[in-house]
Amino acid sequence: MIEKPGKTAEDLAREQKQVAVSEFFEKNRHLLGYDNPTRALLTVVKELVDNSLDACEESRILPRIWIEIKSNGPDRFRVMTKDNGPGMTDKQIPLALGKLLYGSKFFKLRQSRGTQGIGASGAILYSQLTTGKPTTIISSTGKGKTSYYELMIDVKKNEPEIISHQFIEDGKVWHGMKVEMEIEGRYIESRKSVPEYIKQVAIANPYANITFDGPSEKLEFPRSANELPPLPKEIKPHPHGVELGILRRMLKATKYRTVTSFLTNDFSRIGGGTAKEICELAGIDPKVSPQRLEIGDSEKLFKAMQKVKMIRPPTDCLSPLKENLLVKGLKKEFNAEFYAAVTRPPEVYRGNPFQVEAAIAYGGELPEEGTVKIMRLTNRVPLMYQEGDCAITKSIATTDWRRYGLSQSGRSIPVGPAVIVVHLASVWVPYISESKQAIASYPVIIKEIKLALQEIGRRLQRHVGGKRRAEMQRKRKEIFDRYLPEVANAVAKLTGRKSEPILNKLKGIIKKSVKVLVDEGSKEKTENTG
Amino acid sequence: MIEKPGKTAEDLAREQKQVAVSEFFEKNRHLLGYDNPTRALLTVVKELVDNSLDACEESRILPRIWIEIKSNGPDRFRVMTKDNGPGMTDKQIPLALGKLLYGSKFFKLRQSRGTQGIGASGAILYSQLTTGKPTTIISSTGKGKTSYYELMIDVKKNEPEIISHQFIEDGKVWHGMKVEMEIEGRYIESRKSVPEYIKQVAIANPYANITFDGPSEKLEFPRSANELPPLPKEIKPHPHGVELGILRRMLKATKYRTVTSFLTNDFSRIGGGTAKEICELAGIDPKVSPQRLEIGDSEKLFKAMQKVKMIRPPTDCLSPLKENLLVKGLKKEFNAEFYAAVTRPPEVYRGNPFQVEAAIAYGGELPEEGTVKIMRLTNRVPLMYQEGDCAITKSIATTDWRRYGLSQSGRSIPVGPAVIVVHLASVWVPYISESKQAIASYPVIIKEIKLALQEIGRRLQRHVGGKRRAEMQRKRKEIFDRYLPEVANAVAKLTGRKSEPILNKLKGIIKKSVKVLVDEGSKEKTENTG
Repeated sequence: MIEKPGKTAEDLAREQKQVAVSEFFEKNRHLLGYDNPTRALLTVVKELVDNSLDACEESRILPRIWIEIKSNGPDRFRVMTKDNGPGMTDKQIPLALGKLLYGSKFFKLRQSRGTQGIGASGAILYSQLTTGKPTTIISSTGKGKTSYYELMIDVKKNEPEIISHQFIEDGKVWHGMKVEMEIEGRYIESRKSVPEYIKQVAIANPYANITFDGPSEKLEFPRSANELPPLPKEIKPHPHGVELGILRRMLKATKYRTVTSFLTNDFSRIGGGTAKEICELAGIDPKVSPQRLEIGDSEKLFKAMQKVKMIRPPTDCLSPLKENLLVKGLKKEFNAEFYAAVTRPPEVYRGNPFQVEAAIAYGGELPEEGTVKIMRLTNRVPLMYQEGDCAITKSIATTDWRRYGLSQSGRSIPVGPAVIVVHLASVWVPYISESKQAIASYPVIIKEIKLALQEIGRRLQRHVGGKRRAEMQRKRKEIFDRYLPEVANAVAKLTGRKSEPILNKLKGIIKKSVKVLVDEGSKEKTENTG
Repeated sequence: MIEKPGKTAEDLAREQKQVAVSEFFEKNRHLLGYDNPTRALLTVVKELVDNSLDACEESRILPRIWIEIKSNGPDRFRVMTKDNGPGMTDKQIPLALGKLLYGSKFFKLRQSRGTQGIGASGAILYSQLTTGKPTTIISSTGKGKTSYYELMIDVKKNEPEIISHQFIEDGKVWHGMKVEMEIEGRYIESRKSVPEYIKQVAIANPYANITFDGPSEKLEFPRSANELPPLPKEIKPHPHGVELGILRRMLKATKYRTVTSFLTNDFSRIGGGTAKEICELAGIDPKVSPQRLEIGDSEKLFKAMQKVKMIRPPTDCLSPLKENLLVKGLKKEFNAEFYAAVTRPPEVYRGNPFQVEAAIAYGGELPEEGTVKIMRLTNRVPLMYQEGDCAITKSIATTDWRRYGLSQSGRSIPVGPAVIVVHLASVWVPYISESKQAIASYPVIIKEIKLALQEIGRRLQRHVGGKRRAEMQRKRKEIFDRYLPEVANAVAKLTGRKSEPILNKLKGIIKKSVKVLVDEGSKEKTENTG
């Protein structure tokens, strides 16, 4: 018996209860990106735009997106987003937006912006926390009916609380979704701002048409590409990425009746031969029912699956931007003199396929002063915060840019007139927090990013190298040009001939030899110096 | 109508479903600290020990804790922890350990190690994910019955799955809790290791007696203090820390019938006068029922609450270690020549009281080479990972240590024979992720940490400064001592007297003058040099 004046086990038991996930994230809202008013405003826009773009692409609709932010008192903003996507069925609206951890993307192995089912409902949670007001949702699926909702979240239950619900019969046939909420926020126009975010969205999604109507400016981002990238396919888990606990759950839940058919149907990259090999190695009858495997057997199966060699996961679950779209996006926003982009072949971390792309814009009207501008993208979503913790920033800082023609001191971000874009496309991006603003530093991911950077670095070096040589030759020619008349005069006096033909001959010689030198250095740039 | 071959709103709706919080954290296990086998082993130990210490303190029991880690095949370990705490009631065990987000600490404004109700159940989740095995829990509350459970978590439902349950009738009367699980892990003995973690736990909790039986070593950490620190009290929310959404929920849920009694009873620091002032400022009848306040009124009430001045939240919800225990803990583990500690007065961030303490050990047997050793503590729990992102590390790096006698290059961790401890005690520590390994950089928290560091820095400077002067004087005296006999001989020859009395007189003069100089420099150190 405990004789102390403290609490007993019974006292402690009485105090315990379930914490709703909505309650958890309300208290821990910084985990979702709502740590301060400036970031909160950006997070709300980001979550709503992410959803719009995902929905449009799934329905194969070229996205048309409107974003409106209007001041509504000190540190108060009304945020509205509208899209031309498929809309949401009337029944689905309260569930999809009024519950945290509700969605479809969590369960799919396919590249998408959303993954957790927290984004939009998290924004509604933040809105009601800071203003006490419901969010308005208007949506139609194109069948002549328009749903109108005013929605809050019952935080103690993580359930939608419907404040108002009606059908609007306006006779219009349209499809899409409009979300409007009031939040506590702060609007800035500099770095990490909403306009900067939307600009980067436009670069990463050049097939989207975006209108931004801000508190003090209206911006249009017309589409520069008229075709959607191919829709990434959903894949089954790769045997090398699965864990024992998950395998055991899959064994219990499968609809297939033998271990062989379970292996070949519920995983990618296992054919009949590989399945046989796995069963033999594990010492398991391939015809036994998956449900009947004991813990010991499932562990043997698990180990055999890890040992048997098989090809990498399929990569049609990924949809990179590709070099063409990357350069198009950059050209639209930055007036540079040189562009390069590279898309690496797909790789795998913990069974998850991923693919890295990098692009650079250099020179032209880009500012000479200061560090290069970095754009980090995951599944076409720009990342704006936590750059110091991100695998992309770390990879850029640890690449030696001096050899590619940029200034750099130690292991830091290089300096020069350049924009560097890195895009990671994956079925499961390993973010370091729920706010999805930085990529965890898996070695294989860092390696791929650095390989992509080195490739664009080498192309930059060829350009900068050639440019530098051309510049040197141009200067030398200028000097010759300046002294040539004097030389011609001197030669004329010495030889007793006229100076003019001598000067012309000399000019011809100089022009020829400089052109040869420049041609060797940079073939692209000859026209500027020849 | 959508005419494209993509998915319709109906297709998309069919695919959506609820994600269980257990499923979410299983997939995102890096958020809980299970990103690699080395860290996972530490996280499991940390979560179980945190719970044991919290339970013992709540029941006012001097903690006695056993930790056992034994290898069980390559990258496989059996982890066992046992305590002499209050134990858990039979009914409570599956709920408290087999469900994520279940507990009592989330709802309380009081300093404790656990907060989220994720810790121990997260460890069980990781165990079953990597080994497929249940966790064994044995507990008694001191009433002659002992509960035995084998527990797993139904990940799809976030519900406990009881594999085995029985009462052990062994006639023993004991209280406490034993948890045993098998996990995939990696054991290291260097930095960020389990032994290092337990050593720091012993320093931060000198009233706990800990036995660690590791794979290759057995360590005992006897208690160096025989009294528990006072149990921190639970407080009510401070009006300046509450948000509009929370206020509205409180208004609905309160048992009090008027706004006045609601304000004075459900908040801290609101008396009758302040309540009246708030109601007047808000233009609200103080006798109206809280449930009947409309959104407009509750917003007025909220704004009035922010405007009215009131004293800071009470701080008996905090339990700092205090200078005495801090120094005791350091002395137990480090043989230094100088110790100093400081406990700052409590401060408040977003309505949450917090308190910063810092301590330093310097010189003696501490290694001269390399950066100083840093110990980061929150609510007496050592933090081992994500140091780069932590407000403590940032505060140390941006403090100018050269003026306090340590080497430092730029804004980096200082170099020298020192250990720096920083402890943040708070009712709600703002961690940057669920794994609770780094404190978010709130300006007011950084400011408090730096003030504490500057205070111990100044004390260090007095010691190092004095020490340096004393060292100089000692060296000068040595030189005098060496030449004194020759001087005495020379004087003897010149004056024709005997050399011995001259030497003694000279020695007396030197001794006196050096003592005076040393006394001025460092009073503490006189005995070493006089």
